[in-house]
Amino acid sequence: MPAGLPTRESPGGRGARRRILQAARVLFAQQSINATGVAELAAAAQVSKRTLYQHFPGKRELVLAYLREYEQEPALGPEGVLVRSDLNPRARLLELFAAAAADPASPRRGCPFLCAAVEFPDPTDPVHELAAAHKRAFTELLTGLARAAGARQAEQVGRRLALLYDGAAAGAIVDDGGAAATEAYAIAAAILHEAIDRS
Amino acid sequence: MPAGLPTRESPGGRGARRRILQAARVLFAQQSINATGVAELAAAAQVSKRTLYQHFPGKRELVLAYLREYEQEPALGPEGVLVRSDLNPRARLLELFAAAAADPASPRRGCPFLCAAVEFPDPTDPVHELAAAHKRAFTELLTGLARAAGARQAEQVGRRLALLYDGAAAGAIVDDGGAAATEAYAIAAAILHEAIDRS
Repeated sequence: MPAGLPTRESPGGRGARRRILQAARVLFAQQSINATGVAELAAAAQVSKRTLYQHFPGKRELVLAYLREYEQEPALGPEGVLVRSDLNPRARLLELFAAAAADPASPRRGCPFLCAAVEFPDPTDPVHELAAAHKRAFTELLTGLARAAGARQAEQVGRRLALLYDGAAAGAIVDDGGAAATEAYAIAAAILHEAIDRS
Repeated sequence: MPAGLPTRESPGGRGARRRILQAARVLFAQQSINATGVAELAAAAQVSKRTLYQHFPGKRELVLAYLREYEQEPALGPEGVLVRSDLNPRARLLELFAAAAADPASPRRGCPFLCAAVEFPDPTDPVHELAAAHKRAFTELLTGLARAAGARQAEQVGRRLALLYDGAAAGAIVDDGGAAATEAYAIAAAILHEAIDRS
């Protein structure tokens, strides 16, 4: 059994939805979304296909719920550092890149929203729409943190940090050993220095 | 019929392989690789499934050939500007970003190698291996052009331009209207200016 797959503590249905989503996070990252079947997800979550369909009418609904969980619980993914209340805005922005550079093996799929958009390229598909909307909100979150950190031209800084983050995520996808994340960190630090310290 | 799909000029088998690969480029970009079936590819290429399997023993071989064609004929993809003999090395590097910024709708899939790696995340899969090897070669190509353009620290410049290129490709995937490509161009120009003009 691959690491990270859920274990079933109780036979009841209470934890079924949670286990299905946990299995989705593991298997989608290991195999991609489209290469993972519903029967395989049910088996990994230790639920029947009937139970899975009671929680999610179809694969598309499951994929949407899988992405929404990353939005509702940022700590599940690499974006969790952006809401860490123990760090000031500038430190959160830098940590987004530092974490990726320090642990290149961890987010093999890079950004789950980017990967979902690749697998669902039709711009009218609800999965693609959710992914694209999240990336817009992500850029706005970076812009807001840049503004809170005192950066000039915060919108441009936000767009540039989003660009670097996606480039680092792409490097992780092609096993670059953290090379892109390391460069992204250096450029991000320079951008923040220029926009904040030289005001 | 989606734009770009091949037309059949002659009933003979001479053009079958070419048509299959052309259909793969169109359908993989529109639907993703894993969501495109062999029967659908054969229909779009106007060949029988039997003919398709004569050229490609299986889907994986077809995907590998689809990627190899981008390597052998860079002009098929956005990397073609890097081998344009009418431009000097620095202009080629800048054009890589200018082209993406000017035509954000065109490479919806961004980089076909990056997308293939997302869809085949297992690092031991031949498709993933080919995609990862290409991205390494791509970074080396950028490094070589940076060196030819007289850049200091050409390897770092190459890694950073690759990072920016992937970030811009990611923006195209999530329909950002060229926002990431525009920022990537500006940062790439600044990196080259710093590495070349301030020597």
